[in-house]
Amino acid sequence: MKSAPLPYRGRLLVSCPDQPGIIAAVSRFLFEQGANIVHSDQHTTDPINGLFFLRIEFDLMNIDAALPTLTAAFASMVATPYRMDFRFTAAHLRRRLGVFVSKEDHALQELLWQQRSGDLPADIVLVIGNHPDMAQVVAPFDVPFHHLPISKETKGSVEAQQSALLEDAQVDTVVLARYMQIVSPDFIRPWANRLINIHHSFLPAFVGAKPYAQAYERGVKLIGATAHYVTSELDAGPIIEQDVQRVDHRATVEDMKRIGRQIERTVLARAVVWHVQDRILVYGNKTVVFV
Amino acid sequence: MKSAPLPYRGRLLVSCPDQPGIIAAVSRFLFEQGANIVHSDQHTTDPINGLFFLRIEFDLMNIDAALPTLTAAFASMVATPYRMDFRFTAAHLRRRLGVFVSKEDHALQELLWQQRSGDLPADIVLVIGNHPDMAQVVAPFDVPFHHLPISKETKGSVEAQQSALLEDAQVDTVVLARYMQIVSPDFIRPWANRLINIHHSFLPAFVGAKPYAQAYERGVKLIGATAHYVTSELDAGPIIEQDVQRVDHRATVEDMKRIGRQIERTVLARAVVWHVQDRILVYGNKTVVFV
Amino acid sequence: MKSAPLPYRGRLLVSCPDQPGIIAAVSRFLFEQGANIVHSDQHTTDPINGLFFLRIEFDLMNIDAALPTLTAAFASMVATPYRMDFRFTAAHLRRRLGVFVSKEDHALQELLWQQRSGDLPADIVLVIGNHPDMAQVVAPFDVPFHHLPISKETKGSVEAQQSALLEDAQVDTVVLARYMQIVSPDFIRPWANRLINIHHSFLPAFVGAKPYAQAYERGVKLIGATAHYVTSELDAGPIIEQDVQRVDHRATVEDMKRIGRQIERTVLARAVVWHVQDRILVYGNKTVVFV
Amino acid sequence: MKSAPLPYRGRLLVSCPDQPGIIAAVSRFLFEQGANIVHSDQHTTDPINGLFFLRIEFDLMNIDAALPTLTAAFASMVATPYRMDFRFTAAHLRRRLGVFVSKEDHALQELLWQQRSGDLPADIVLVIGNHPDMAQVVAPFDVPFHHLPISKETKGSVEAQQSALLEDAQVDTVVLARYMQIVSPDFIRPWANRLINIHHSFLPAFVGAKPYAQAYERGVKLIGATAHYVTSELDAGPIIEQDVQRVDHRATVEDMKRIGRQIERTVLARAVVWHVQDRILVYGNKTVVFV
Repeated sequence: MKSAPLPYRGRLLVSCPDQPGIIAAVSRFLFEQGANIVHSDQHTTDPINGLFFLRIEFDLMNIDAALPTLTAAFASMVATPYRMDFRFTAAHLRRRLGVFVSKEDHALQELLWQQRSGDLPADIVLVIGNHPDMAQVVAPFDVPFHHLPISKETKGSVEAQQSALLEDAQVDTVVLARYMQIVSPDFIRPWANRLINIHHSFLPAFVGAKPYAQAYERGVKLIGATAHYVTSELDAGPIIEQDVQRVDHRATVEDMKRIGRQIERTVLARAVVWHVQDRILVYGNKTVVFV
Repeated sequence: MKSAPLPYRGRLLVSCPDQPGIIAAVSRFLFEQGANIVHSDQHTTDPINGLFFLRIEFDLMNIDAALPTLTAAFASMVATPYRMDFRFTAAHLRRRLGVFVSKEDHALQELLWQQRSGDLPADIVLVIGNHPDMAQVVAPFDVPFHHLPISKETKGSVEAQQSALLEDAQVDTVVLARYMQIVSPDFIRPWANRLINIHHSFLPAFVGAKPYAQAYERGVKLIGATAHYVTSELDAGPIIEQDVQRVDHRATVEDMKRIGRQIERTVLARAVVWHVQDRILVYGNKTVVFV
Repeated sequence: MKSAPLPYRGRLLVSCPDQPGIIAAVSRFLFEQGANIVHSDQHTTDPINGLFFLRIEFDLMNIDAALPTLTAAFASMVATPYRMDFRFTAAHLRRRLGVFVSKEDHALQELLWQQRSGDLPADIVLVIGNHPDMAQVVAPFDVPFHHLPISKETKGSVEAQQSALLEDAQVDTVVLARYMQIVSPDFIRPWANRLINIHHSFLPAFVGAKPYAQAYERGVKLIGATAHYVTSELDAGPIIEQDVQRVDHRATVEDMKRIGRQIERTVLARAVVWHVQDRILVYGNKTVVFV
Repeated sequence: MKSAPLPYRGRLLVSCPDQPGIIAAVSRFLFEQGANIVHSDQHTTDPINGLFFLRIEFDLMNIDAALPTLTAAFASMVATPYRMDFRFTAAHLRRRLGVFVSKEDHALQELLWQQRSGDLPADIVLVIGNHPDMAQVVAPFDVPFHHLPISKETKGSVEAQQSALLEDAQVDTVVLARYMQIVSPDFIRPWANRLINIHHSFLPAFVGAKPYAQAYERGVKLIGATAHYVTSELDAGPIIEQDVQRVDHRATVEDMKRIGRQIERTVLARAVVWHVQDRILVYGNKTVVFV
């Protein structure tokens, strides 16, 4: 992981069928464009007929002006012959985040704090709560808070309101920071791979409601949290990050919640930071995370 | 955890309904018998109507001679009025272990090595394999190895043979050290809370066959292993110990197996050591582990 | 660890030379006073001529009214014959914390959050900074902030001011939450075992200034943080808690600082919580921590 | 990390001053030679005037026959213009290890097991002990064991004997697996970056003798182990890998030794595996480890 991005730092993400010569073609292209590769990570699922993933950080003067030309040239000279999906980004352009919350503050709090400290290089531009409780947490950070209560009956119209708010604020990525509502498939669709949830268990264990109570019942010796991209199947989307903490027989459900809060906020913040740094590539139901 | 037990070290394990005065009654009893409490751990599930668990290590001269009297006196003076289940043991009396294996050597190897190094204060008196492969691993340790192939058709009679061998060898506890067979309920019954299995996943995730392949499919970022007492429900018995290790997108199923071997052997060895040191109390489907 | 203390919950801490009968004497005393032992932890440094440490949580009706009597009775009936140091506390009486800070916010922020969330069962009644920066972090929490610049020349008089402020606010425990000043022995003396510092390295490695730069130079693969009681020898007091996080060759000093902030705040918060819950006993230059 | 190497898998390690175009030049060269890049890792200490490190795994038919030509061509076409240090290796050629031991078996045992299980893709061809104890551990693995007692007086001549044995056995890398002797600078010199030691502490804490006793005295809450390349300064060479485990106030020095054995063997085995897989580059007193 790297510190604050420089104004001439660019990123290139590539996925394509594996074949010989990809790195040579990409690195030669960048060299000829005057870009200096600073970091490079790649992954091949299988040398024979596998998928190839690449993330490059490079330095290039006047990157903002250069990106459109770079993109067009790369498309024709490299991406087309190698059948690549690709994306160039300028590292200094900060993503705009919308955060959904309910009554618990720790995950939201961590994101706000990491933004302020500079560890989360993105802007939280909007917080939406189905309860009013988080207004006071958001207040000192000067971020708009919207209270939109939601119920089974109103879900359709409230999700429409949420979508409108996200669009107005030009939100790029949505984070469910302990938002205790199931989001409808219609809402999810346009946010594919840009909608991050924190689930308070070590998935795939303890899907659904009250995972700490489930963990207590089962008598596990470690509890965990999982950040994942949301798909239409509950708690089953591509996993970005997980972590666990040891508990023993003394831990009540309340203790697990308390210990779990620390894991949840850490895991979620890591996932969001990696996402806004273009470190995550999704394929099938899995992630490649170039840390 | 403690080092090699002394010949005058005793242990007392107690479980009973919680009520005031238990510790006073037990500690007074031990004091009056001339026993000096060296360690004491207790746990109450709930101060109101909960269960109470106690593990005491004490020093007492001539403990072998004293235990029968101690047990009888404790039964009438303390255990009966407080409705206790209890057990006295002399720490220097080593448990006799039977180990079941298939083709993988790491879990067995770890137990043999920890016995030799003194970290596992018990005696492995018998190894039974449904394949012959582990004979050579056992050989340098001078432990009898029995090759008993097993199939669906022969399961009943082979389990009878296994039971006979265990009885002949006066085995106290059976360890399934990557024994890739489902053990029948009839076999399990007499070994309740004395039959330990290592499952190569972080339970309750990935129950059953091929957990590393399941983990790979799901794209988890941590893999784990779980030591548990075996019950008639597959991989669902009381959990003794669990641990995990980080993996990333580069990990193939083979890599997971390799990394997992290290977790499995460590977790299993810890569980067996705790078991033979009388550190584990089972209630419902959970364990209290006094480490 | 346990959740919010109940109004009838008491704690007893004992240290004394080990000898047979201590637990019997203490538990009998509590039983006869009508107190029900809920948790009990003990530690003996050595069964022969060692030191004995005990922490008991008990339930007793009207504990506030009962404590003076209890204390007097225990002193004469138990503590004197066994030559004990001891202390009774009522769990619901919250400690009053003073926090010293400089320019970094993460450790302070964590303590404020954990107080608000209830995870830190104590009151931060005063924050003193040698820089003004933390005023804004403290503001939303309604805690008085004092800016007291300090220099080599003014150290004596400023420490006197600090002491006066602490006394006025009836502070019980002082936490140095990344306070980048060396505190003088005269200031430390009255706060023995009540003055907690977070050092940003895995002590005893990297004592003194710029530990992350030292860690970077040495090329370590794990960085850590240490919470300890402050003594007159720099970074050499009794260690309460430590933790580490993995780093690799890509980590710059800046990355280490960022990763380290998460470790520091977690480790410090744990130490402070344990301290206010009377879980820590100090002997020699070490701690017994009953978690 | 990857499983058993294929007969057509090659590795290229490069270090040189950073400048634009390196990756393009290297990857183009490999592509033109018919080599398909399967993994690639790189590290730049600083984009401006920094050092550049590269590790590539590639597939190439008939690699054994091809390597000499490849090496010569790379030297003239790429390495010279970019002022590179570089090295090609064929992944299927196993390194020959010599292991030095004293009386403790765990580190040696782990290496022998991991070789047998295939996790350590190298051959232990020689074990030298200054005590005879390890002969029996080595015996079942069919590896020659030499007992060479050593004392202050005989150090010079014994080290000459050791060197002769290593040369006879064509040893490539020497592992000090809890070899409790200080090795002389003259012995070390020819083995620069090929002589690996496991130190039983979290370096730079507790350099020198009896680190667990030192750790116990200091009252640390985590103990660790460090694998490093040996240099003439005691316990101060480039660190390859470190890990730690939690201990509490109950841990005696003996307990620390027992817990530490598990850390030591794991950390050493990881370091040796990475070394024989050409994953480690040394610069200054630090390592780049491409895992």
